[in-house]
Formats: sequence, C-alpha cells, structure tokens
Amino acid sequence: MSYTELKREVFEANLELQKRGLVIYTFGNVSQIDRAKGVIAIKPSGVAYENMSADDMVIVDLENQIVEGTVRQVMRPSSDTKTHTHLYRHFADIGGVTHTHSTYATAWAQAKLPIPCLGTTHADFVYGAVPCTAEMSNEQVQRDYEEETGVQIVRCFAELDPNAAPMVVVAGHAPFTWGKDAAKSVYHAVILEEIARMAYLTRTLAPQGDVLARAVMDKHYFRKHGKNAYYGQTK
Amino acid sequence: MSYTELKREVFEANLELQKRGLVIYTFGNVSQIDRAKGVIAIKPSGVAYENMSADDMVIVDLENQIVEGTVRQVMRPSSDTKTHTHLYRHFADIGGVTHTHSTYATAWAQAKLPIPCLGTTHADFVYGAVPCTAEMSNEQVQRDYEEETGVQIVRCFAELDPNAAPMVVVAGHAPFTWGKDAAKSVYHAVILEEIARMAYLTRTLAPQGDVLARAVMDKHYFRKHGKNAYYGQTK
Amino acid sequence: MSYTELKREVFEANLELQKRGLVIYTFGNVSQIDRAKGVIAIKPSGVAYENMSADDMVIVDLENQIVEGTVRQVMRPSSDTKTHTHLYRHFADIGGVTHTHSTYATAWAQAKLPIPCLGTTHADFVYGAVPCTAEMSNEQVQRDYEEETGVQIVRCFAELDPNAAPMVVVAGHAPFTWGKDAAKSVYHAVILEEIARMAYLTRTLAPQGDVLARAVMDKHYFRKHGKNAYYGQTK
Amino acid sequence: MSYTELKREVFEANLELQKRGLVIYTFGNVSQIDRAKGVIAIKPSGVAYENMSADDMVIVDLENQIVEGTVRQVMRPSSDTKTHTHLYRHFADIGGVTHTHSTYATAWAQAKLPIPCLGTTHADFVYGAVPCTAEMSNEQVQRDYEEETGVQIVRCFAELDPNAAPMVVVAGHAPFTWGKDAAKSVYHAVILEEIARMAYLTRTLAPQGDVLARAVMDKHYFRKHGKNAYYGQTK
Repeated sequence: MSYTELKREVFEANLELQKRGLVIYTFGNVSQIDRAKGVIAIKPSGVAYENMSADDMVIVDLENQIVEGTVRQVMRPSSDTKTHTHLYRHFADIGGVTHTHSTYATAWAQAKLPIPCLGTTHADFVYGAVPCTAEMSNEQVQRDYEEETGVQIVRCFAELDPNAAPMVVVAGHAPFTWGKDAAKSVYHAVILEEIARMAYLTRTLAPQGDVLARAVMDKHYFRKHGKNAYYGQTK
Repeated sequence: MSYTELKREVFEANLELQKRGLVIYTFGNVSQIDRAKGVIAIKPSGVAYENMSADDMVIVDLENQIVEGTVRQVMRPSSDTKTHTHLYRHFADIGGVTHTHSTYATAWAQAKLPIPCLGTTHADFVYGAVPCTAEMSNEQVQRDYEEETGVQIVRCFAELDPNAAPMVVVAGHAPFTWGKDAAKSVYHAVILEEIARMAYLTRTLAPQGDVLARAVMDKHYFRKHGKNAYYGQTK
Repeated sequence: MSYTELKREVFEANLELQKRGLVIYTFGNVSQIDRAKGVIAIKPSGVAYENMSADDMVIVDLENQIVEGTVRQVMRPSSDTKTHTHLYRHFADIGGVTHTHSTYATAWAQAKLPIPCLGTTHADFVYGAVPCTAEMSNEQVQRDYEEETGVQIVRCFAELDPNAAPMVVVAGHAPFTWGKDAAKSVYHAVILEEIARMAYLTRTLAPQGDVLARAVMDKHYFRKHGKNAYYGQTK
Repeated sequence: MSYTELKREVFEANLELQKRGLVIYTFGNVSQIDRAKGVIAIKPSGVAYENMSADDMVIVDLENQIVEGTVRQVMRPSSDTKTHTHLYRHFADIGGVTHTHSTYATAWAQAKLPIPCLGTTHADFVYGAVPCTAEMSNEQVQRDYEEETGVQIVRCFAELDPNAAPMVVVAGHAPFTWGKDAAKSVYHAVILEEIARMAYLTRTLAPQGDVLARAVMDKHYFRKHGKNAYYGQTK
C-alpha cells in the first residue's frame, strides 16, 4: 500500500470519529500500520477536523521517527503516537488503533472500573469484561507518559487475548480500541461507547445485578467469531 | 400480497429503525408474515442499512427454510429468524416482529427487570408491565439458542395476552416487539424505547415510587383500545 | 380573530412541539382561545403531525361542543379537550394551553413529585416549585377522566397564581403548560422540559441539596416579570 | 480593532453557542473586550438568535455605560453585563467572557459543588477542580445582583489563577467561562459542558471514586500549557 493510500484510509477513519459523534474539536486520533513497510500513518497533533486533509496525516516508523512522505511541510504527529506504536509492536495481529474521549467509555475510565459483560450486545463484540488498566505510578508518568500508557495497556492483556477484547479503558484517562485496520478500530470505538452507555444505565438502575451467564456469553461471541460463526453473509 | 410487496414493506420497516435512532450499523431486524402463503420476509443477516435494497429481504417459511423469491442470489436471513418464526407460530394475531438493541429497553433487559407501568404514556400502549423473560438454562442455550429465545418469550405470555402487551424484554439480551404488520411492530419498538427511558428516569429519581393506580391504567388503555375506545378519528 | 387565523396559530404551535423534540408520533396537543367568541381551536385526536393541515384544527366551545368552522369534514378534537376547556374556564388570564409527554417532565410526573426550584434557570420562569397534582380518586377517574384532570390541576392552584407558575405536572401522567397564547404555552413546555432535566441531574448528583435561596429566587423572577423587570428590550 | 470588527467577532461567538447546543431561545451571552479603547461588545438583552445581526451587539465601557457605536437605535445590553465588566476589570489577561445555562454545568452549579478533576479530559484544560462560588448573602443579592455575581467569582479566585481554570460555576446559578477572546471563551464553555457531563456520569456510577492522581494531572495540563507544551503544531 502506498503512503498516499495509507494516509487516505487513516484520514477517512479520523473523519468517521467526528461523524459518529465520538469527538469534539481536535479530540481523538486514529492510525493504521503498513507492517511490510514498518510504518504507520496517524492524525497530526491538535489539528481541527474541518481543516485537515489526507495529506496532513503523518507517517512515522515504529520507533516514532517521522518518515517524510510528501514534499509538503510535515506536521507533528499526534501526541499519543508512542501509545499507538507500543500497541503495534506488542499486539501482532492488529492493523489499526483508535483513541477517543467518548463520553460514556470515559466515565468508566474515570471511575477506574472495567465494563462488565451485562448483556448480549457486549458479548457480540467482546469476550468478557472490557478491561481497565491499573493506574500508572508517578515514576511512569514522569518517565515517558505516552509510552507508559501503552505499557499499562499491554500489561492488562498479559492473560487476555487482544483480539477477543479489542478495546480497553485506561484508568483516569479514556478508551483505546483496535482492529484489523483503521476503519475497524473506529467501528470498535463506536461499539464500545454504546456498550459503555448500556452498562452505565444498567448499573445505575440495578446496582447489584449479575453479569451475563457464561453460556449465553459464549453463544453470542462464537456465533459471530471463529470458525463456527454463522452471523452475516458467507464471503 | 406478492413477495415483492412483502419485501418492500419489510425493507421500509427496517429503514425506519435506523431513521428513528433505534439501531447502529447492522443491529436490529424486522419481519412480516403473509399467513395465506405461510411465509415471512426478513432482513438479511449482517448487512448494512446503507447497502440494502428491498430485493435483499429474504423469504423463509415457518420452518425457517429459504423460499427463493427472486432470480438474484439469495442472502442468508437474520440470525434471529427462528425467534421470529417461533413468535408467528405461537401468537396467532401478530403480523410483524421487530428486534432491536435500543439503549434504554436493553438496559432494562440487562437488569433482568420487567418495566413497571409508572404512568399514562405506558398505559396508553401496554396493559400492565412490559414483561421480562426468565433467563435461559444452559441446556436451552446450547440446544437451539434462537428458537429457545422464542420459547422463553412465549412462556412469559402463558397468562398474558400478547396483544395487550405487544413487547417484551429478553433477560440479559434486548427487546422484541410485534404488531399487526412490520410497520406497527417498529412503532411499538419506538414506543417501548420511550417508555423504558421514562421508567429509567423515574426509578433513578424516586426508587420507591408506586406504580400507576389500576383505575388510571384501565382508563388510558381502554380509551385507546377495544370497543369503547374514543381516541383518534373514526375509521 | 377569524377561525382561519386561530387555526393557523394553533397549527403552527403544534408543529413547534415536534420541531423542539417534545413529542413523537401523535403525542401532545396545543390549543388557543378566542375569549370574545368563546371558542378554542385544538389539534384533532390521533392525527400524525406530517399529515395535518391548519384546516384540520377543530373549533369547540367551552362546553366542548364542536362548532363547525369549515365546509370540510370536521375531525374529532383531541381526547384531552375537556382538560383544556376546564383550564380556560378557571384560569381567566390564559390564552393558550399545551399538553405533552416530554421525557424529563413526565419522569417527575411519574415520580409524583413537584419540581423544586434549584436554580436561576427555573426562577427565571416559575416562581417557586412546579407543582404536582394530587392523584385522582378512582371515582374521579371513572366519572369524567379528562374533565377531572382539569379539576386536579385547578385544585393544585387553589393558593397559587397560575401566571406565576404557568405549568404543572399531573401525578402519574405528564405536564400541562399555559401562557397568553398557544405559542407562549409551547415556549413554557420547552422551558419546563429543560428545568425538569436540570433538576433530575441535580437531584441524582446531590440528593440532599438545598433549594435556591429565597432572595435569589425573588431577584431572578422579578427581573423578568412585573413592573420592575429590566430583562429584554423596552417595548 | 474597530467597533464593527469587535461586534462581528462577538456576534459570531454568540451564534456558536447556539450551534454547539449550549443554549435555547435567548439564553446565554458572550462579550469581548478592546482593552486599548476600554470597551466591550456584548449581546443585547433578550433578543432571539434568529433575529440578531452583528450590528445589534452593544458597546459599553467598563463602567457599564452604553457607548453609541452606530447610528441605529442602540439596544439594551445583556442583563448580565455588570458581571462581564467586573471580570474584565479584575482578571487582567482575559479578552472574552461567556455565560450559558448549559445543562450539565448548570446541574453542578445547582448542586453547589465544584467539579472535581476525575480524568485527563478535564486535566487537559483546567488545572484542578472547576471551582464553585460561595452562595451570595441576601444583602449582596439586593444591593447589585449582577455586579455581586462578579464579586463572588473573583473572590473564588483569590488563591487561584483564572488562566489555569478559565471557568467557574456560580452556586445556584450557572457557569461563566473566559479566554483570550470571545471565541476562546465559547470554546471553554463547550469543554466545560463535556467535562461536567463526564463528571456527572462518573460520580453517579462510582460515588466514592478518587480524583485524578496529581502526577497525571500535571502531565496532561503541562503537555498542553506553558513553555514545555508539546501538544499541537509549532506556531
């Protein structure tokens, strides 16, 4: 895939964030990787969606160095770039990463709570709870904050499969989601916001309610994922 | 009614789900029955609303077998088809069925609680609480999940009239609604979401509040339903 | 004012309900009185906003008798007509009445609670709490329900000035608002919904919070109302 | 800057309030100062956004005297003008002020609570809690209410930097925000509403949750503000 195509896909995925109501102003950022070339394209830092063009996406390698892709003046990449590259380096299967401060998912992050699996809407997309990272130590914050945000996320998946729960809430911060490409990571960001909203309503309505039974959770997850899936059209 | 007409009505009812904000992406499905022909038309599985045409609706009989209605490649019907056909087989008067994961109704489903009749908005459409099914046993889940979802709903109406409460929330899952045709079942899905939202707000504001007095409930329900109704224009 | 003009104003006020998001489907109704002629125009019963024309508004006298205003087939007036005429007969200064089931105001009605004055947004429009009627007795419900709804509202204002609190929530039901004409009664319905929403959020955030201090309440109310008002432009 | 330019900027900032959904009807007002000339432009009192033109903005000096800027009939300035001028006189660095009754920020004001810093969305814009003023004494209310609203706000910042927390909620009332110009003060009003909404959700979900760790708060605030900031593009 050419840099031009990669930037176009990342640009469109970033615009989708705005269209779906997940971000205001310059909030949020989406990236996509080209593993063959060892580079990602990512939204530039602090640029309004209205003024952005596909050409403004920044190409960086996995050590966060800017790779000049165009003759035009290169912009500074998202301040969260190191979190994105950390995830690409550690989660081998993912191709796109999205970060938002979407309202309900952020409320769970601020409450420092994982989002329990309370129903089939959740089970259709995530196997088990949406994990919440541990809080960062002061030392981590001061060392290399954005890199360490990635470290906290990866630690959180030490015994979890990032493909089975393609999303996380970072304690005190906000969500990150991922998928096979930029578009799919945005899709997961939209799903997460809806799951988070339903879970908020369920918990405030019935604080002591049980999580979804394991058998139903398995049923819903595996009718959409894996070799026995039967949801959707055959390819 | 021809297959073409049946598909057209079902297609439009499905689009209405999206216009009314009850679904995102491929969530939700609506069907309608032609009892003379013994078939239903239903939304195809996992197809985006934007890409769908009336011709993509799938015709299946009441044993869930696809009846080829067009020369075009037939799509796989909604994965919830067996729940729809189960309801048509057991609720003799209904002509349309809608399934959504609308946010507030799903919160009640996830809380595994019936929606109490707290006011006249509710009483105008549903006589008594909106029932919540019992949870499925593990055995049911493994046997034939979508069929058993229908079984749970029908059981829930053993002593209730499905015409007087044309809606249900399935515990841990989401709502199903029905009516004389596809359009009316969507109408009930919209009403349910509004009733569910009002009941959520009422319960979180005043957790100990009483349900609506029986006399008012009767008054509102019967001024709109049955032979003494006086709401609306004479036909 | 001719019947045609009266119907036009009432028609437009009814459409405003929909534009402001206070109603779905055929919910809600607005009327306006011509006190010289002793008649009101009111929305017909159960007609969709999309299909309604100004000519469909129904002219009835204060004893709820239809006065034929046009050659066209007269429609049945709103099923809540008797509540409207009851209010016009007892509240001498009002010229328009609106009834909705707007979500937050209805939640307070369903909780059977008056809406306390918690801030200046409220005090700008309503002096003191928005009252909540007592529940109706079974006998009232069976006698003449819509008339008795008016009776409950009027009773609620035995020691209150309907001009200083141009709105009420009817216990277990929903709000009624009024004003000098139909448009102003709709304006008050919009304000009430916003006040009700703010009060819901305030109470669920801080259940034990105090109401607004009397001095601030007086200040805000009287800077907008009465002979010493200084808000807005001089007429 | 000419009066015409100043009015144009203030007019556009006021319209932005409506576009962003922070106000209904005539709610809200924005002003901007020209410190060289010692005047501000501010929205006229009680005029609907639909009927307003740039020319209707009112020019007043810092003692609240109207300075006739145009040949057209001068309108009465916002009834909150004295609060605006009080803030300009005491906060030397600010160039624009916005007042709204946006829903969630107003709920915190009505609860008479500061908005705690619960996450990085907040820390990106405000250093520490969004303060809540003390309630006004009855004497203050009666003396000169709008001026005293300014007094309460300035007192609240006796030991706080108004540049580090460019916003406040006035107890029992609603928010005021400020910035280097009118547009930036509106930007802060939008941010405040989102922060207030997230904090409401977080507190109702987990009432006992901790505030954000100091190290993370410092990190987020200072990566966007001050001489070591690295968010956004270099100027």
